[in-house]
Amino acid sequence: MPVGTVGSVKAISPDELRDDIKAQIILGNTYHLYLRPGHKIIEKAGGLQKFTNWNKPMLTDSGGFQVMSLSGLRKITREGVRFQSHLDGSYHMFTPERVMEIQNAIGADIIMSFDECPPYPASKDYIAKSLDVTLEWAERGLEAHNRPEEQALFGIVQGGVHEDLRRKSAEALIKLDFPGYSIGGLAVGEKKEDMYRITSFLNNILPEHKPRYLMGVGTPGNLLENIRNGVDMFDCVMPTRNARKGSIFTRHGKLIIKSARYEEDFTPIDPECNCYACRNFSRAYIRHLIKMQEILGMRLTSLHSLHFYLELMGMARQAIFDDKYEEFANDMVPVLESIVDHI
Amino acid sequence: MPVGTVGSVKAISPDELRDDIKAQIILGNTYHLYLRPGHKIIEKAGGLQKFTNWNKPMLTDSGGFQVMSLSGLRKITREGVRFQSHLDGSYHMFTPERVMEIQNAIGADIIMSFDECPPYPASKDYIAKSLDVTLEWAERGLEAHNRPEEQALFGIVQGGVHEDLRRKSAEALIKLDFPGYSIGGLAVGEKKEDMYRITSFLNNILPEHKPRYLMGVGTPGNLLENIRNGVDMFDCVMPTRNARKGSIFTRHGKLIIKSARYEEDFTPIDPECNCYACRNFSRAYIRHLIKMQEILGMRLTSLHSLHFYLELMGMARQAIFDDKYEEFANDMVPVLESIVDHI
Repeated sequence: MPVGTVGSVKAISPDELRDDIKAQIILGNTYHLYLRPGHKIIEKAGGLQKFTNWNKPMLTDSGGFQVMSLSGLRKITREGVRFQSHLDGSYHMFTPERVMEIQNAIGADIIMSFDECPPYPASKDYIAKSLDVTLEWAERGLEAHNRPEEQALFGIVQGGVHEDLRRKSAEALIKLDFPGYSIGGLAVGEKKEDMYRITSFLNNILPEHKPRYLMGVGTPGNLLENIRNGVDMFDCVMPTRNARKGSIFTRHGKLIIKSARYEEDFTPIDPECNCYACRNFSRAYIRHLIKMQEILGMRLTSLHSLHFYLELMGMARQAIFDDKYEEFANDMVPVLESIVDHI
Repeated sequence: MPVGTVGSVKAISPDELRDDIKAQIILGNTYHLYLRPGHKIIEKAGGLQKFTNWNKPMLTDSGGFQVMSLSGLRKITREGVRFQSHLDGSYHMFTPERVMEIQNAIGADIIMSFDECPPYPASKDYIAKSLDVTLEWAERGLEAHNRPEEQALFGIVQGGVHEDLRRKSAEALIKLDFPGYSIGGLAVGEKKEDMYRITSFLNNILPEHKPRYLMGVGTPGNLLENIRNGVDMFDCVMPTRNARKGSIFTRHGKLIIKSARYEEDFTPIDPECNCYACRNFSRAYIRHLIKMQEILGMRLTSLHSLHFYLELMGMARQAIFDDKYEEFANDMVPVLESIVDHI
């Protein structure tokens, strides 16, 4: 899922997302949308899809991750989290009920329980206590959810890198019978081996017939490794954020477009790629645009990287259908994690 | 002509320029393109059109205006101008011959003589001496132009706000028989009445059957007033630059999208406008994007403002054909110069 933090996938239009990138669903951040423009305005517009002119599925997160990142500006109690806006310092309170009210107003198709995402590293004791609160919040959110027929509410599995806590979390949420399960609290600084260990561990616990969403992950290699472990859905700002700085994802690895080697390279980013950037522009031109901080440069690199991410997911899906996923992932991951040497 | 300073009309793709904005020609700045990516790279790419994937006409300016704006970083002699790059302080020399070599390499369809654009205000004595040099440079450029069959070289009329100097400049250039004439040295700080007086004065001197290009102008009202005075071509960064900050040009005047009045306004920027922004997005959404400094916001406002500028030029052309131009301009100018009150 491309990430549209405040209601726009950065640099990209909804038409490009639909026609070129072929995104099926995009994500909005509850915390950001609540602050600006405010969920009441989005509700008056007829929901986030109408407001942003995106006519396909959408998902909102719970705000938990963003609120927890405001260290020093927030206070956690059993009731909820009191925090100060990073924009203007104003005080706000998120509770499971409030977050549900906000997400009901924003109106995405898939919404998230309010959770505490503990920092990394944190003591196991802290994570265990935090988990108890998050499980209570999951129940309260489920209770408060006003549009269950229209919006699928996912529970968020927490528990850090501890398998016993992850099991406890997953089993408690499964009892509440959510239509899907998110895996939170990963990609927060732990080693990627720990991330893979936890998704692999949860693969045997989470129900097979319901979607599993790994929040905030990751590199193309991370995606393939976690698909191996049964994950179905991902979101990450990486393709767009890195692209704006000129680090472009391709099937041959990362292409650092500012490199002098591309100064007079009049071939596309990826000659085999079918995106608007690769069909129309050269590395030399895109390099020049990125160096000059031209918006068109950020548009083209973001477009390509998102196109590639979605295409990679299509390839993974096909490999699963063809029963060749392990081979596919084993071949691709090392290439994806390299710097492009020659295409 | 939308302005593509370093080879990109800011925030806009060539497809949008062609299909939505319906631009017939765009401009590149010789000074900027010479510094980055360098005219040699553009030449290797096959010219600026190929480099930027713009398959319609293009114009480059002479670099004179930009170089003169580097006050303190430049030294003018009869030979040319020695200056320091605003990017890295490196030393460079522009002469009429060098500027022609650069523009021949860049390869635009219409190119400009190297000129001195005196600051405003300047003494009449200074402007007269500067004009003599500029006329010498025009001859030298004409001589040095290597692709006259492919690139139309325009002479630039200078002379400040002084009619006798403007006459001298225009008559000398007319003798050199350029395929078109530019009017430089206006919109540099003088009153708009002085600008209109000079274009009106030149209207009787410049040959009717050759294009007249007023450089660096201006607001929609400026355009209509100068069309009255026989000007055929304009370029200005105003539609895009102002749009990125949320000041949007419409047929009803300037719309300041950040205004609180648009917070819950779910109508388009201009309900009668046919551009991508107006067909798909509301003022409330665009306001939110611009306030959040989202790239999509800058894309949409830039797209609309350029679409409007080109549409306004089409309306002016039609009014001329219909022999109703004076009435059209008299009606439109006061509206265009107002702030939108209600659409």
